[in-house]
This record gives sequence, C-alpha cells and structure tokens, in this order.
Amino acid sequence: MAETDRIFELTEKYFTSQNKNEIDTELKELLLPYGKGSIGIAQINPKVGDIEYNSKKIVQYINFAQSIGLDLVVFPELIMSGFPLENSIENHPIIANECVKWLNEIAKITTKTTALVGFVEPYEDKFYDSVAVLNGGKITDIIRRKSLPNNSEFNDFNCITPFESLNNMITVNGIKYGILIGEDYCNTEQNADVIINICAVPTKIKNEQIKHSFMSSLAQKYSTPLVYVNQVGATDGVSFDGTSRVFNKNGEMLACAKSFEEHFLIVNPVKNLGKIYPSVMLSCKDNQSQFSLDYEPDMERTYKTLIQGIKDYFGKTGFRRAVLGLSGGLDSTVCAVLLTDALGKENVFGVSMPSKITSQTSKDDAQILAQNLGIGFTVSPIKDMFDTTNNCLQNLFADVEKHWDNRYKQSFTADNIQARSRAMFLWGVSNEFGSCLPIATSDKSEAYMGYATINGDMSGGFAPIADITKTKLFALARWLNKNREQKNAIPQSVIDKRPGAELAIDPKTNKPLIAEDALMPYEFLDEVIWRIENKKENYNIMLNSEFLYEKSHPVTREQKTMWLDKFYRRMSTALYKKSIMPPYVIVDSPSYNSKQPITSCGINYKGFEQKEIEQKIQQWL
Amino acid sequence: MAETDRIFELTEKYFTSQNKNEIDTELKELLLPYGKGSIGIAQINPKVGDIEYNSKKIVQYINFAQSIGLDLVVFPELIMSGFPLENSIENHPIIANECVKWLNEIAKITTKTTALVGFVEPYEDKFYDSVAVLNGGKITDIIRRKSLPNNSEFNDFNCITPFESLNNMITVNGIKYGILIGEDYCNTEQNADVIINICAVPTKIKNEQIKHSFMSSLAQKYSTPLVYVNQVGATDGVSFDGTSRVFNKNGEMLACAKSFEEHFLIVNPVKNLGKIYPSVMLSCKDNQSQFSLDYEPDMERTYKTLIQGIKDYFGKTGFRRAVLGLSGGLDSTVCAVLLTDALGKENVFGVSMPSKITSQTSKDDAQILAQNLGIGFTVSPIKDMFDTTNNCLQNLFADVEKHWDNRYKQSFTADNIQARSRAMFLWGVSNEFGSCLPIATSDKSEAYMGYATINGDMSGGFAPIADITKTKLFALARWLNKNREQKNAIPQSVIDKRPGAELAIDPKTNKPLIAEDALMPYEFLDEVIWRIENKKENYNIMLNSEFLYEKSHPVTREQKTMWLDKFYRRMSTALYKKSIMPPYVIVDSPSYNSKQPITSCGINYKGFEQKEIEQKIQQWL
Repeated sequence: MAETDRIFELTEKYFTSQNKNEIDTELKELLLPYGKGSIGIAQINPKVGDIEYNSKKIVQYINFAQSIGLDLVVFPELIMSGFPLENSIENHPIIANECVKWLNEIAKITTKTTALVGFVEPYEDKFYDSVAVLNGGKITDIIRRKSLPNNSEFNDFNCITPFESLNNMITVNGIKYGILIGEDYCNTEQNADVIINICAVPTKIKNEQIKHSFMSSLAQKYSTPLVYVNQVGATDGVSFDGTSRVFNKNGEMLACAKSFEEHFLIVNPVKNLGKIYPSVMLSCKDNQSQFSLDYEPDMERTYKTLIQGIKDYFGKTGFRRAVLGLSGGLDSTVCAVLLTDALGKENVFGVSMPSKITSQTSKDDAQILAQNLGIGFTVSPIKDMFDTTNNCLQNLFADVEKHWDNRYKQSFTADNIQARSRAMFLWGVSNEFGSCLPIATSDKSEAYMGYATINGDMSGGFAPIADITKTKLFALARWLNKNREQKNAIPQSVIDKRPGAELAIDPKTNKPLIAEDALMPYEFLDEVIWRIENKKENYNIMLNSEFLYEKSHPVTREQKTMWLDKFYRRMSTALYKKSIMPPYVIVDSPSYNSKQPITSCGINYKGFEQKEIEQKIQQWL
Repeated sequence: MAETDRIFELTEKYFTSQNKNEIDTELKELLLPYGKGSIGIAQINPKVGDIEYNSKKIVQYINFAQSIGLDLVVFPELIMSGFPLENSIENHPIIANECVKWLNEIAKITTKTTALVGFVEPYEDKFYDSVAVLNGGKITDIIRRKSLPNNSEFNDFNCITPFESLNNMITVNGIKYGILIGEDYCNTEQNADVIINICAVPTKIKNEQIKHSFMSSLAQKYSTPLVYVNQVGATDGVSFDGTSRVFNKNGEMLACAKSFEEHFLIVNPVKNLGKIYPSVMLSCKDNQSQFSLDYEPDMERTYKTLIQGIKDYFGKTGFRRAVLGLSGGLDSTVCAVLLTDALGKENVFGVSMPSKITSQTSKDDAQILAQNLGIGFTVSPIKDMFDTTNNCLQNLFADVEKHWDNRYKQSFTADNIQARSRAMFLWGVSNEFGSCLPIATSDKSEAYMGYATINGDMSGGFAPIADITKTKLFALARWLNKNREQKNAIPQSVIDKRPGAELAIDPKTNKPLIAEDALMPYEFLDEVIWRIENKKENYNIMLNSEFLYEKSHPVTREQKTMWLDKFYRRMSTALYKKSIMPPYVIVDSPSYNSKQPITSCGINYKGFEQKEIEQKIQQWL
C-alpha cells in the first residue's frame, strides 16, 4: 500500500506547499485507480457563525478535489454556519441568509467535482438543516433533514424545522448516492450504491462504540458501503472528534480519518480503496458498566479533547495567552501542562501567590513546574492584599453588626479573601496585557461540592479541567508524565501529596486543611458523581450498593450515610456556583446544556417511606 | 354581588384563621347556589423539586375544597414537581417516583371532591406530563399531555415524552370535563360540558393578549365554558403570573384570579358564577409594533415580576437578606428600592464605597436613599484597597513584562480594581453574616455592551435588573416615586443625572466619564436591543430604518454606522460576560435558555454584497 501512503502524504502537504502544481500532477497519477466513485471527505473545523472563514475552507477543499479529479467532495453537517449555533440563528437570521449567498457563488466554481455542503437553510420564515448539492456551476439540489432529535443537548433544533424530502438520492458519474443527514436513517437508502451520512456528532466515550457498531450494521443491512463525515474542532465547551469513517458493504471499516485534526481523506467505497488512520476511537474502550479508577483506556481521548478545547476556545475568541495561579497543587499543575501543550510555553504565565499558610513544598513545586515547562513565572505574595482587605472588612463588619444579627462566629471570610486576592491579580494581568485570559483551575469533583471560591479560584476566562474529576486528574497527571515528549514535567510530590486549598489551618492537625477531610475521600465522591451521571442512581440505591472504595476500606453504614448526606447537601447549595462557572471543555458530562434550577435546592434526594408520607398528610389535615 | 365578595373574603381568611369551622359554616351557606359544577381553582406557587412542600399545599387546598363542598379542585400543570425542572428529572428520576408515592396517599383523602393534580409521571423508563384524577380515595384516571412544544424555552420537554391518550374526559357529578394540558388543543373537547385547561405559562407581555384571545375564541368555537388554571411564582429567573381565568361559552371572561399571588378562586362555569379580580393582564397593553419610551402600560407587570422574582429566589434558596453597593447611580438605587419592597427594609444593607472619583452628589444621594428607605447603611471607602492592589499589581506587571509584550499603554486595570474592591467588600459581608446574598446591579443595556466589570459590579448572588434596559429603568424609577406608598424615595438628582460608573475621568471633560459618551445614547442602544429581540432585525435593516431617537436628534449616517458597529462589536465580545451573569428576573427577554456560543464572535452581522463574495472566492482559488 505504498501508493496509499504517498497519496496521503501529498494531500497533507498540498495546502501548505508553494508548489501545488507538482503535487497535483503526482497525485493525479496516483489517483488514477480511484477514478469513478472517488470521494474526498473534508473533515474540517469551522468557526460557528463565521461564514466567510468556513467558506474559505470549503472553497479550498473543493478546489483541491477538482484539481485532482475526484467525483465528489463531502463536508460535515451544517459546516457552513458551524454547529452548534444554539439560538443564534433565531436572533440573527442573517447567518442563514448569508449561507445562501455564499453557496450561490461557491457553486460557480464546481465545474468538475460535485460538492455536498451542509448549511442552515432559510426558507419561508423557517430554517432547515440542509445539504446543498453543488455541481456544474450551480446548486442542483437541496436535501433537508427529515427527523430532528427531540432531546438534543443543543438549542439549534428549537429553531430548525424537520422536512420530509421526496428524494435524498443524487447520481454522480453513474453512481447513486443516498444522502442521510445526522441520524436521519430511514429506508430510502436501500436503492443507493453508496450511503453518505453527513454528521456533526460531539465526542462522548459513551456513544462511540454504539455509533460505530450502528453504522457498520447499517452498511451490512443494506449491503451498501457507507461514508460517515463528521465535524472536527470545538465550539465553546463542545468537542467534535472528526474520525470520519468508511465501511464496506460487509460493514467492515475500510477507511478512517484522524481524530481531533482537520483531514482530507480520499476514498473510493465502490472500489474498496481507502486507508485507516490511527484514531482515538480505535483506542478507547466501550462504556464502562462499573465505576473504575482505570482511566487509561480513555486518557488519549481525554487529553486530545482538552487540548483541542483549549486551543479552539482561545483561537476562536482571538486570545492567545493565559495567566494562571500556580499553587503547587494538582489542579493548577495539570492546567499549566495542558495550557503549555495547547498554546505554547511562551503564551503561558504562572504566578505563585503564597500566603502564610502556603508550605515551602508548594512554593517549590510551583517553581519547578514552571521551570520544567519553560513558561513565564513569578512570585507575588498576597500578604498586603490580605491585611488591607481584612482591615477594611473588620471595620465594615462592625458597622453591619449594628444593624444585623447572625454574624458567624466561624466564617470562611479569611479563606475567601485569599482566593479573591489571587483572582484580583490574575484579572489585573488580563486587563493590562493584550490577548490574555486568566484561568479558573476548578476540577469537577470540587465544582460539584462547591469547594471553590466565587470571584476566587473558580473565576477566570476559561476553566480547562472543570469536567475532570479529581481521581481522573491524578490519572491524567501520571499519564502526562509518562506520555508527553518531555517526561515527568510534573513534580512527583504534586502527585503524591493529598490535595488541599491551603486557605485554612485544620485545628485538629494544626496543618493546612486537607480537602478529603473537609469533604470525603475523592474515590468515593467521584463514584457518586459517576453513578448519578451515568446510571442516574439515587441516594438509596447508592447507599445499598458496594462502592469501589469500600472494597479496600471498611466503611460503616453511618459513615456512608454521612458522606452521601454531605454530597447531596453540598451539591444542592453549589447549584448557583455551577451556574456561573466559566466555559469549560466537556469531556465526560452527558450534556452541554444540562441545567438544574438553583431554587430546586429543596429536592429530597432520599425520598420518603409510604408510611411517613401518610403521617405527614394526617398532620396537615 | 355582596355574596361573591364575602365568599372571597372568607376564602382568603381560611388558611390563616384559628377558627376554621366558623368560616366553613358561613362559606357553605354562601356557596349553596354554586352546587353542581362548582370548581376551586388552586393557583399555587410551588418549589421546584420539593414534593413535600408542594404536596402540603395540595393537601390543604383539597381539604378546604372538600370542607366547603366543591365538586372539583384543579391545580396547575406539573404542580406537584414544580415547573420548570429543566434536566433535573433526567438526573434525578426520584423526583418523578416520589410524585407517585405522594399522589397515592393524597388520593386517600379525596372522599367528596375530585382533585386534578399535575405531576411528572414515570412510566416504563419514560416521563410524562400528566394530570392525576383523585377521587373516592384513589387515583381513578391519568391524563397525559399529547403534544409537547417542539421549541420550548425549557429543557423539561427534552426528558418528557408525548402520549396519545384515548380519553381526556372525566365526569363529575354528571358534568363532563374535557381536560387539556398545556397547549394540547385538539378536537376531543367538543363533547365536553366544560373545558379545563391545565397550564404553566410564564409571564410575557408579548404573549398575554394572544393567549387571552385564543382561550376566549376556543370557548366560543365549542360553545363551551373554559377554565384556565395557571401556576404562580418564580423559579430562578422564570416568572409565572397566575391570572387564572374562566370564560363562558360565549368567550366572555367570567372570572379571573389575581396576578402574582397565590389564589383560590371559586367558580361555577355552568352556572356563570365567578368574580373578576383586578389583574395585571387587564392593565397591560398588547405587544408593541414599534419601539416606544412609553413604558407605563407595562410598568405594573414589570414591577410585580421583579418583586416576585426577588422574593421567590431568596425565599426558595433560603436567603433573606441582601447587601449591595450604593453608588448614588440609577442601577443600584432602583435595586435598593426593589429589594426593600421584596425583602423588607430590615433585610437590606447598602454600602457606599466611594473612591476619589466619586462625586459629593453621588455620596449624598446614596445616603439620602438609604435614609428614605430605612435600610441599613454605612460608608466604606476603597482608597486603601485601591492603593494596595495597585502597588501589588505594578510589581507583578513589571515581572510579567519581562516575558510578555503587548502591555497596554492605556488599560482598564485601575477602573476594574475599584469595581472589584467593592465586590470584595460585599462578598465579605455575605461570607460573614448568615442568610445574606450580595447583589449584582447590572442593567440589560450595559450587560449587552459588556459595560460591567467581571468580579466587580456584575458579580453577586442575584441580579435583579439585568433584564431591564436603561431607558425602562428610568421609567421604572419615576413610576416607583409616584406609585409606591412612600412617594419620592428616589432622590430626583439620581433620575436627572446622566449615568456613569465613576470609575474613570474623561480626559475630554476632566469629569467622570459619562456612559453614553463611552457607548451611545441609551435611547438608541435600547432600540437596537428591542429590534433584535422583538423583530429579529439585522444591521442593514436597522441602518435603513428610522429610530425613535432620530426623530428628535439629527443623526448622520456615519454616526449611526459607528453606533451600530460599536453595538455589534461590543455585543460579540460581551458574550462571555453574559454567560456568567448571576441569575436574574426574566421580564422582557424572549427566552429563558437562549444562548449564543462565545466562540461565535466572528459572525459578520452586516453580511456581504454578492459582488464582494465573488471577489473573495476568486482570491482564494
């Protein structure tokens, strides 16, 4: 298969090369066997709403496909407008109108190759999820999506109307292609020579295996090759992995594009020609049926999702630099590594902001990490900030106390002043230096527990790891030390020490408070989160199931009850904090737009016995 | 109608009275003419997810209805679980399971009166929007909602399944009631004696007149009386106005419950008995077709929506006190008045936090306002905070500058330090005193423009006026001075002066910067917002339409272009700020869950000429 490799080498080179003609000539030669039925899969990364940016990519890929003589070039679903656009089309219908204007002009260049371009189509005051067929200099056909997901995680489908097309079949060079948009599977594809499935499916470990098997079985069922084209890139927190694929009529995978990268994959499904690139999809396991600390199988997907998420959020909003506090703890350490890999070390600046509670090890670890990564670094103690704020507040509190009772004997005021002083520094840097976002370093376990300070460590322009639980973060730290080109950038002591915010002294130990002592063991906490998100389990089911943690640690029923009570209590009061969390990379969460009202804090997650309910009702009568 | 008035007087008294038996006796007497076909409309305010709290209300109203001998008592849609629950049911199915347990027990008390109770029903791994018919000690029937809104502003309908019921008719005391849930209008109600429409419809000035006319015409169409039962109260930012109504078979309104209050309204639609209470619905005009500064017709609804929103957010999350900065400006002044009316003066504390830029008038106005309202008040200057933060930051910036270029010559750093120091004080009070939330005072015009400081004035536990534009806020201030029991609580100078944040000195005038000089005239800005939200108009349409502002001020095309450009540029970069805005009362916004990706900042709101597109494509080839 030396030819196949050379084809892909040249394709990769094409867009950056100065000498396109030479590449053209060689490619055309190599592609001679492809001929009739050849397809270019243009797996591209759009900017939502930026029609000009997306059109430029579309034009360049069509142009390339024509210059090397392909029959067909296929783009992902809604690629011209980008996806998800949420409610933007509704408020700004110009997005859809511009798509049509651009398509009309782009159609003019399609003199040899037929192009299938997904776009949001405005028609008689409605919007459709459509694919334009560009051919012979004009738009020859439009295929609209028939069935829309009724429980989409995105708001787009609130603005888009389903449409029962009469025909979703096109013929190019004598071959009949059945066009399916999204999950629009029906029976009209049975007469097609090739099924083309035009999609935009976000990465989710849960769905990956299911989707793959389903497409394979669809090809088998109709005994027809299937081409699946997916979007790549991130929009806010939502990540698309690409990994476009081709199945032969036996349902076997014939070709597969790269994951988390733009890719132009040339295939011929009727002649069984294509290449399988190493993809993340192939390395990540099926959905777990039980909670496990073995995160290894999903680590590559996790890492690449995070890197793409950071890179695209910064790139698409026009930022290029990040400033973050380096505490010497796990959260800020992993964030620093990820930012370095996504933005380049010259674009990351770490600030160590010690207080009197900060240990020497923490200070050292922060500095060593910055050195290892080669990022900017300085030390900026917060003593003066703390003293001034505290003085001012004590005077203010004395005044408030004249009017209000219920001043706490023990409050978190001092803890929070520290976290907020640090955020004040980071936002200051962001205000003073161009293209710079401050980073919120909260992780998912702590976000669930509200174990973060508003306007403090949970504040920032972006929160890279807010969807990664603490135990997964430990695994990620170890994985990074092993798998990055630069080994062991993270000091071992960061991975070995038990996490704590170093905001307060534990009166029991006279040492900085350890988070697990204030909350519960992370291993237990993360399994609770996992069971809710993946199994929709409730309090009582969890109380009566054995946790992984319990296999190695004796836990009394009282202890377990206490932890579960604390979990639900803290989760309920943290709903507000979750609502103002900065944008973050969705890695494991089931849905992008999942929301729980803040005023739902009165939910009784344990429920009542029938007997108790009866008694209560009697009392109320 | 002396009897009618007395009935309602006694009904109101019943729940707080010590002597229920006496009231019962008198009421029964008065209600004798109601007899067959009598209905109690229980317009109640639920807490989302708190089944016990909601059930208690349901039990008490059923009990009352029985004790006075009504045929039927009807509750709003999904009242037992509360609505909207967003994705809560999906993550916590126990909410639905508990509904069933409670209903089974509540059914046992229905020995005389039939009760219709809306609840979220779990059945075979699905959820339904259902109404239980409780009668003779058991659940005798369940009616499920057939058609779900496919563009709901809430996520609830992503978890709920539609269901084609065979029968939506029940017979009570020989009268046939056709039960419609939400907008489930179909033709099966044509054989009913009375149509009962069980709803949960948020308040929206746009929909009010349409909904009213539709229900009236429905009653007329089938020549059948119609009973419309609506929820009251607020869930996070979403407000329900109640205003349940009864129409006779000619489509005339026969009875109407109060707006924004719990109400038990007794009617008999077959005998044309009922009373029309003064409601906000009757006082607010139809949807405007043009932008207008005459906000008066919607002022009462606006005020009551705001008060209910604040009261319920605090009440349902367990907070009772608010602390806010009083700058002497319009935003914080109106917030203080609203908080006083919603929470009581003893629960509001205002802090004047002057800097060297703060004028004496502003300081005086803050103090006079606090005195007028009788709320807690103190002065806490931010000089020390500013100096310390500024010193620390200058050192930090010098270090960062060794690594990074592009330090701004003119930055907003100093402005933001002031706003953030103030937020630090307010969050400090919230951390130190029980049950206290700090208030974000941003208004809608400034939220659109991103004219607020992150972790500064846009930070807080709640943002009362974030959906009120500046020109409407001026109107509200005047209305409050005229219509509150205490007249002119707001100093006239607050209303007369041109708004500005007093964070910076305008080099042109040597006085504090005026917001309209930095942005554009509020009258123009607010019309742009209005046209986008209500008319979905785009840049070019607006450029070529005459604005209200233009009728009284000459505006050149260059000037208008500059303002529109600034609007779209600022709006695009403010998407992030909007995403982390604290919860606020929805008053005018078209949708609760409306969202635009932050990375969509590349949208070209002007669009291109066809010619320009053609040229660009040629360049790319």
